[in-house]
Amino acid sequence: MKLWGGTFDEAPDALAYRYNASLPVDQRMWAQDVRGSQAWVRALGKAGVLAADEAAQIEAGLERVYAEFAAGSFVFAAGDEDIHTAVERRLGELIGPVAGKLHTGRSRNDQVATDFRLWVMEAEGRVLAHLRKVQAALVEQAEAHAATLLPGYTHMQRAQPITFGHWLLSHFWALERDVARWQASRAAAAVCPLGSAALAGTAYPIDRAALAADLGFTRAAENSLDAIGDRDFAAEFLFNAALLGTHLSRVAEALVIYATAEFGFVSLADAYSSGSSLMPQKKNPDVLELTRGKAGTLLGHLTGLLAMLKGLASAYDKDLQEDKAPVIAAFDALDVMLPVIAGTITTLKVYPERMAAALDAALLATELADYLVRKRVPFREAHHLVGLVIKLGPLNATPLAAMQAISPAFEADVAELWDFAAAVERRAALGGTSVASVRAQLAEAKARLAAAA
Amino acid sequence: MKLWGGTFDEAPDALAYRYNASLPVDQRMWAQDVRGSQAWVRALGKAGVLAADEAAQIEAGLERVYAEFAAGSFVFAAGDEDIHTAVERRLGELIGPVAGKLHTGRSRNDQVATDFRLWVMEAEGRVLAHLRKVQAALVEQAEAHAATLLPGYTHMQRAQPITFGHWLLSHFWALERDVARWQASRAAAAVCPLGSAALAGTAYPIDRAALAADLGFTRAAENSLDAIGDRDFAAEFLFNAALLGTHLSRVAEALVIYATAEFGFVSLADAYSSGSSLMPQKKNPDVLELTRGKAGTLLGHLTGLLAMLKGLASAYDKDLQEDKAPVIAAFDALDVMLPVIAGTITTLKVYPERMAAALDAALLATELADYLVRKRVPFREAHHLVGLVIKLGPLNATPLAAMQAISPAFEADVAELWDFAAAVERRAALGGTSVASVRAQLAEAKARLAAAA
Amino acid sequence: MKLWGGTFDEAPDALAYRYNASLPVDQRMWAQDVRGSQAWVRALGKAGVLAADEAAQIEAGLERVYAEFAAGSFVFAAGDEDIHTAVERRLGELIGPVAGKLHTGRSRNDQVATDFRLWVMEAEGRVLAHLRKVQAALVEQAEAHAATLLPGYTHMQRAQPITFGHWLLSHFWALERDVARWQASRAAAAVCPLGSAALAGTAYPIDRAALAADLGFTRAAENSLDAIGDRDFAAEFLFNAALLGTHLSRVAEALVIYATAEFGFVSLADAYSSGSSLMPQKKNPDVLELTRGKAGTLLGHLTGLLAMLKGLASAYDKDLQEDKAPVIAAFDALDVMLPVIAGTITTLKVYPERMAAALDAALLATELADYLVRKRVPFREAHHLVGLVIKLGPLNATPLAAMQAISPAFEADVAELWDFAAAVERRAALGGTSVASVRAQLAEAKARLAAAA
Amino acid sequence: MKLWGGTFDEAPDALAYRYNASLPVDQRMWAQDVRGSQAWVRALGKAGVLAADEAAQIEAGLERVYAEFAAGSFVFAAGDEDIHTAVERRLGELIGPVAGKLHTGRSRNDQVATDFRLWVMEAEGRVLAHLRKVQAALVEQAEAHAATLLPGYTHMQRAQPITFGHWLLSHFWALERDVARWQASRAAAAVCPLGSAALAGTAYPIDRAALAADLGFTRAAENSLDAIGDRDFAAEFLFNAALLGTHLSRVAEALVIYATAEFGFVSLADAYSSGSSLMPQKKNPDVLELTRGKAGTLLGHLTGLLAMLKGLASAYDKDLQEDKAPVIAAFDALDVMLPVIAGTITTLKVYPERMAAALDAALLATELADYLVRKRVPFREAHHLVGLVIKLGPLNATPLAAMQAISPAFEADVAELWDFAAAVERRAALGGTSVASVRAQLAEAKARLAAAA
Repeated sequence: MKLWGGTFDEAPDALAYRYNASLPVDQRMWAQDVRGSQAWVRALGKAGVLAADEAAQIEAGLERVYAEFAAGSFVFAAGDEDIHTAVERRLGELIGPVAGKLHTGRSRNDQVATDFRLWVMEAEGRVLAHLRKVQAALVEQAEAHAATLLPGYTHMQRAQPITFGHWLLSHFWALERDVARWQASRAAAAVCPLGSAALAGTAYPIDRAALAADLGFTRAAENSLDAIGDRDFAAEFLFNAALLGTHLSRVAEALVIYATAEFGFVSLADAYSSGSSLMPQKKNPDVLELTRGKAGTLLGHLTGLLAMLKGLASAYDKDLQEDKAPVIAAFDALDVMLPVIAGTITTLKVYPERMAAALDAALLATELADYLVRKRVPFREAHHLVGLVIKLGPLNATPLAAMQAISPAFEADVAELWDFAAAVERRAALGGTSVASVRAQLAEAKARLAAAA
Repeated sequence: MKLWGGTFDEAPDALAYRYNASLPVDQRMWAQDVRGSQAWVRALGKAGVLAADEAAQIEAGLERVYAEFAAGSFVFAAGDEDIHTAVERRLGELIGPVAGKLHTGRSRNDQVATDFRLWVMEAEGRVLAHLRKVQAALVEQAEAHAATLLPGYTHMQRAQPITFGHWLLSHFWALERDVARWQASRAAAAVCPLGSAALAGTAYPIDRAALAADLGFTRAAENSLDAIGDRDFAAEFLFNAALLGTHLSRVAEALVIYATAEFGFVSLADAYSSGSSLMPQKKNPDVLELTRGKAGTLLGHLTGLLAMLKGLASAYDKDLQEDKAPVIAAFDALDVMLPVIAGTITTLKVYPERMAAALDAALLATELADYLVRKRVPFREAHHLVGLVIKLGPLNATPLAAMQAISPAFEADVAELWDFAAAVERRAALGGTSVASVRAQLAEAKARLAAAA
Repeated sequence: MKLWGGTFDEAPDALAYRYNASLPVDQRMWAQDVRGSQAWVRALGKAGVLAADEAAQIEAGLERVYAEFAAGSFVFAAGDEDIHTAVERRLGELIGPVAGKLHTGRSRNDQVATDFRLWVMEAEGRVLAHLRKVQAALVEQAEAHAATLLPGYTHMQRAQPITFGHWLLSHFWALERDVARWQASRAAAAVCPLGSAALAGTAYPIDRAALAADLGFTRAAENSLDAIGDRDFAAEFLFNAALLGTHLSRVAEALVIYATAEFGFVSLADAYSSGSSLMPQKKNPDVLELTRGKAGTLLGHLTGLLAMLKGLASAYDKDLQEDKAPVIAAFDALDVMLPVIAGTITTLKVYPERMAAALDAALLATELADYLVRKRVPFREAHHLVGLVIKLGPLNATPLAAMQAISPAFEADVAELWDFAAAVERRAALGGTSVASVRAQLAEAKARLAAAA
Repeated sequence: MKLWGGTFDEAPDALAYRYNASLPVDQRMWAQDVRGSQAWVRALGKAGVLAADEAAQIEAGLERVYAEFAAGSFVFAAGDEDIHTAVERRLGELIGPVAGKLHTGRSRNDQVATDFRLWVMEAEGRVLAHLRKVQAALVEQAEAHAATLLPGYTHMQRAQPITFGHWLLSHFWALERDVARWQASRAAAAVCPLGSAALAGTAYPIDRAALAADLGFTRAAENSLDAIGDRDFAAEFLFNAALLGTHLSRVAEALVIYATAEFGFVSLADAYSSGSSLMPQKKNPDVLELTRGKAGTLLGHLTGLLAMLKGLASAYDKDLQEDKAPVIAAFDALDVMLPVIAGTITTLKVYPERMAAALDAALLATELADYLVRKRVPFREAHHLVGLVIKLGPLNATPLAAMQAISPAFEADVAELWDFAAAVERRAALGGTSVASVRAQLAEAKARLAAAA
């Protein structure tokens, strides 16, 4: 079906037609398109623009179109340049000329914005559900390892002993920020553009507030020009996706390193590992590496959309047609990535004995400095003195006399410091790595998951 | 001052030292650094880690350091590798060895995160204040031009008549979304990392909730590992900046075109125009073009930060030192861009007669189609018939007979359609371009600005 | 077919399998995969690793696989996780167990790098051919409009008169830089990784130089570790695509503005225009707007790939699997964009009379300044004096006496300046807009196109 | 000095002035600006536009300006909005009104493009010199470790034994591609825009080819419109920088992991290490981490520039003023990063015994599969059989009988396989990891460095 053409003398160039066609992308939004049209026709009926029977006939016809899509029996035709055309074309085949009244008072500009928002709102709900499962997987492992000790690293160098539960929960809290962002973006997307027509607002007495509510939006857009050209919701989707991807990439990066033979802290279940086509011994953490890689791709989608948006003037330009492909691609990536990461974490094998073996006495250097602080040595001086002690050899093997040669503040009770669990327990302030603190985090985390369920 | 070195045998390579030094960037955060240290020393005092007099002495010393910065008399020393070192070095010069107790129980990791968040929270407040002024400028012009007609464009082609007030307000609403985003990000940033120490939490009995409140945060971070490596607040700052830049770029792009000799709808005040070094007649809208250009740069800052973050493992890696420069650069750009755009809009000269001259009858083609719809012609058919009419020549000059040859539905009353103001008034639904709708938008917009003031 | 699994006890998780599978993307490289395998088996044969009859049998079997793909009759199986697996699985079905000898001494790591490079080299050739056609379209129009005058714009303000041919050729030269970049990248991509095996080099006595030549590469990669993880050629492809997209976006942006009713310099042929679903009068330059939009998307692909690459350590990580989708997407976009833009330019309607009407006397202000320079007034002073003259009204309508009141250097011969064609002719230096200079550019441009044909 | 203003009634707004001013950035190009002006004045003299004594006087005056900059005694004035204004203002102070003749026939548009290209060409030369030193450092270490064995990793899992020399050289070859790119970009940048004036070409009979040669360009730009708005050279600079940054990030990422306590393959010299403000034992590879982080920032610069360029129409728009800051920032980063990385590699401490300790028998699984291949077992089957053997325990400790239970093809000579050096030596094809191959690579690498010196 051709939506326009009265003023055109020439047929479109075949390649130009292909260039313009958005069907390969926007057919993903068939359900939103039909539901949006049904709401529109109801609104036209209530406004008296369509007779009640016309409206009912069109709405019923659209329900048949919906059923065909749902059943997988809808067949696209050669001239269907986008999902809107396809739906309206099929409607006409099913119910005849009255179908031509559907597009009264609206434009593809507000129609596409409406479809896209509905789709994004639903996708955001799905991402949120996935996210909660990743968080639950982290909580479950953290509970099992609330008291499992391992070195904490900064700069990838051993820094201080922590618990593995604390490490796992650090990622829970990062994802909690993602949850807040996705929730906010879903709420911000729920503004209805329908009734904005091409740019100036519909010329028919549509009750836009009621229409918005009918479609599950929280309100109608305040300005028609803004409504047709606004893609902030798409930009927010992609920013959220890129930042979530970054968070998962950081988990993945750490686990890839912890899963090396050299660290040996964890290994992935066979179900989440891959082999090599050449080297029979390999078990590779492909799912983690792909997660890192896809975080890069997600950033690309965000960049591409913003670069496109930046080039626009106000109102609607066709550049905007590039808006949907990156959002769909990002969603499709997350829709697999999130459950795979959840499964990877749930089935992760943890090796506490390898973690324990990596605890060396140097991790207690801060304890030694704090010991001096308790003896009233200013921290800066204490830090320097401990540096000198460390050069003598392993902390817990250095004779007291040698330490005292560096500072008389070292006394026999220094030997009590060589206890990794005790060092962990000293980090008892809110948010610290002590077991009690981790248990408090766990309680809070579980409360949040329960509230969300 | 060297913060470390006990275990080092060799001096740092001079270039490596320069590579590491962050002072050129983080000196911008001197106020936050001093205030953060004062709060820390108060917390150490309350926790009994420092004697009351020590704490008081250090706090007072820091006040002197603050005063030096505020007076512009602070002198950096050769060994000041970052703002933290500089402050602590100077403190030692002013109060002697007790200064060495300041760094007890904290790390640069939590200190830098604290400084940076405080700085960002303040910067976000300032952006919000600027934003409100740009909105006010739009509202003021929109009020003056609530009934000024001009063509609305889609695809940069004349589409339908609208009011210039409606156009101006379309940008008000876009900025209103920016306001919501900046407010949300400022709230999300207000989480205190101090007390997380290097990664595992401080080993001292600090009341982190009280410390957070003392510094103006809304709560303390829940997990020390997460707290030291979390830069979501910086990513949100840069995303907000990039999207705000995009919105302003769209305003700018449209005004650049409206300010051409060919459109002639607006011109910029001399105070916001630039000339040419070669061509004496030129008045160029440089401020608008720079705004478009800077929107690109802002996107670059966002991309750079996210690409950096994506490369991290969990906890703290030094890569994070690349976090501040792009945020500061983005803020500095917005801190000038926003008031300049506000001034440009306030002083914009508008030429309603040029706008009126651009209203040609083709803009009423939709009216003609809607006319047929009122005569019960389905919209699709009406759209096609009007296309045929348009090929005959200017709509308002086409004889009725010629139109009737295309469809008998055309009658004498068709002549009543050739009225641009009437077409605008038909767009009376919520968010439409009718004068009443624009006035309703104005009332709502002013109420929001008043509430924010 | 499962390429690995001997050491695996558990089946892969279904979603994890989907996450890992690259077949939806890499099936585009079926031809390269088969040809690469044929060359490999020939090399194994020459090296004596396979018996001559075995090699011949496998090569012939691969030819049958190739024929199935070419005929569209190849059927993927459920376990085909990538194109390599699919080809080898089918080979086994066709020729039996000897197929198991194909993968001797190579790895998917070098195989995928080889396939991808071959595909990219071919894609680059195709882009180059398209590019030459866009250049030819520009040259053809430039030839027709070598002497057509219009205002040249800077800052979108009228600046000086130029010829439309000069404007068109400015884009020819930009594309000429693209041609150079694509040629250089194609040459740089032509380095053969095959024989690098998983990372350490093949353990069989393969003549890698001969193998490289057999596949159309110019040489074999110098280092196996580098070869398997190097994706510079993909990054170059995407950079070239993004910059080419930027060049086309600039053409498109200018033409969108020139095609407005207000400028009216050009219009697009119906075959390259689109209509509106709501407004019957609209003819929209969608193809130009999409080109601008797709330039943004292309930038996103570049950013995404580089962000992914930046996260890698040396050698091969699975993140690299994200390399192909953006390159294919970029190619597919260019593969339509370039011919569509060529067609748009070729069929562009140009309105010299509208261009001429836009030439106003202010465009000659520089002529007036240069006139004063010829009278020995320093240019800076001349520029200032002309500024004062301009304020009096249209240059060519200002009485001589009024001009002389500003400077006695103005004399009666000033009237000779009011000639746009003469002003154009004064720009006769190399690269200027004079007709002769444009003709010289045309000659050079045509020579380059002829040399490339 | 105000370059324009005759037609302006109002002074610029102070913030708008600041927004427009480019001096903070473009003062870096003072040398290029003066040299460009000197060449221009010589060209004006040769063309007879200036009298010989005028030209000589201006050129000498510019030499004095140059000397002031070189001596650090040049003082900017309040009205200097850019480097061009500053130079011309000072010239006027030094030589009087004749300075007003300098700007004859040129524009800031061609002047800024010329300055920027000259600066970029020089910067590219400097990057190339730095790059060669990083390569030399890699070669030097590779020579020392041509036969040092360690595990090669893919997916960060131990894969096959390689030599450390091979690993080091893999990065040499990546940088060799960078060298080729920088050389090509430097050549592509060497096109002279001067004489293009504002957009239409200079109206004076300048010999642009001679002018180009005078300034060290290889030719004059072919089209004035293209020349003033072309920033491909800046985009290429930033792409080269981003890809080079990516290469260095990959080296850095690997070394950060190799420098962990768990791997222990290398450590950084104290001169290239950093300590911790809290933890006295830490030696952190900050320079490597910063390199990873800065690779992200470099990508941001590239993205920002391309997004800005994409928004332009043809010819010159002021958006282009955003071009220089990212290029300068990228250069400044590389100008330190490259020598620091060179120093880090040169002083890297390598621990061959830790590398040797990480060689476990599983790395020889491919050898075992190849052994079966030599016994005529198809590789696919061999791969599967070895997988089964691996499950029995360490390869070199598995009894022959157990292996023979899996396949009778295993015979007593299998014991000869348990030799890592022999496995390395089998990778003797071009580009493989055998010591001979590494020595061949070294010879080639040294020849290239020698040719470049």
